[in-house]
Amino acid sequence: MISQDLQHLIKLLSKLPGLGPRSGRRVALHLMKNGKELLRPLAQSLIDAADRVQTCSSCGNLDSQNPCTLCVSPLRDTSCLCIVQDISDLWAMERAGMFKGLYHILGGTLSALDGVGPNELHIPQLLERIQSMTSLREVILALNLTVEGQTTAHYIAERIQKETGLAVTALAHGIPLGGELDYLDEGTLSTALIGRRPL
Amino acid sequence: MISQDLQHLIKLLSKLPGLGPRSGRRVALHLMKNGKELLRPLAQSLIDAADRVQTCSSCGNLDSQNPCTLCVSPLRDTSCLCIVQDISDLWAMERAGMFKGLYHILGGTLSALDGVGPNELHIPQLLERIQSMTSLREVILALNLTVEGQTTAHYIAERIQKETGLAVTALAHGIPLGGELDYLDEGTLSTALIGRRPL
Repeated sequence: MISQDLQHLIKLLSKLPGLGPRSGRRVALHLMKNGKELLRPLAQSLIDAADRVQTCSSCGNLDSQNPCTLCVSPLRDTSCLCIVQDISDLWAMERAGMFKGLYHILGGTLSALDGVGPNELHIPQLLERIQSMTSLREVILALNLTVEGQTTAHYIAERIQKETGLAVTALAHGIPLGGELDYLDEGTLSTALIGRRPL
Repeated sequence: MISQDLQHLIKLLSKLPGLGPRSGRRVALHLMKNGKELLRPLAQSLIDAADRVQTCSSCGNLDSQNPCTLCVSPLRDTSCLCIVQDISDLWAMERAGMFKGLYHILGGTLSALDGVGPNELHIPQLLERIQSMTSLREVILALNLTVEGQTTAHYIAERIQKETGLAVTALAHGIPLGGELDYLDEGTLSTALIGRRPL
């Protein structure tokens, strides 16, 4: 009873992360009711993104130019490289606004079960990039504090230190801003205690 | 730090119902990572929907043809007309699969505060349509059980009975399937008690 065109649209919308069949129908109806302001601009924006946005061959970021704006910016500090797991992590770091260096996006974590080894994550290319960055002094590992993220961080840190001798650091672990001790898990509290610092 | 094209896409995605800036970013990244399977098909599907799907001039449903498939189907019972508030309600009724008649979509409810009167809901056209349906015998009001929905239902029922003399019915109120008395609100229980039926 729903037209083929709408059914197809709902099917595709339902595949988006966070949406299901019900919210897919809701979004489709909302789009149909706002054809001029939302449906057509969204279609055009998707086509523009598909046509123009590409992966930066240097750092793995998404941008309308290659190498990306961050990689070619004269304002960025080329002595510092931050390794993140995903583009969303780069965005999160940029929202924090503290880091002024360059990025490298791994695109995943090492996982023996899923068959993701160092070559799948392009770690040889990362080491090449690090060796070619003449002014580089520090590599910051900003990987997720999960088992996979930390395994990957350890592996990369070891390779970088062995093959380049550069300083490798990692983000601090501890109590998040606004964190209340009573509500924190034991692991975080233990980490915060181990990492205590003099005042 | 995010390219203009991506920023624009995220902005539009964030406007969809149920999505915000965070899920907009997530959906945009997911789309970029699945260009061939999702991004381009979705763009094409949106264009197809914008070009082909239109509002049925008879009932207000959305379809690729006008009048819509439901209105012209020889399988539907033309003696029964079901009035619903929105297209999503028509879809819900069709999922239930019990109703075989025709539909009429109001597109909203009467609301003095929002300036929605009978003319804004095209109620004169609805009455005209009802009078032109020669085999019509019953009008079913399937409006939401909210104050606005029920006010609108009362108004429409009165107009139809006065101007056409047709039988007007409404969906039954009571305990929903799987409902447990202990968890139901007092209003629903009172309605179910008032509407009790002999076994």
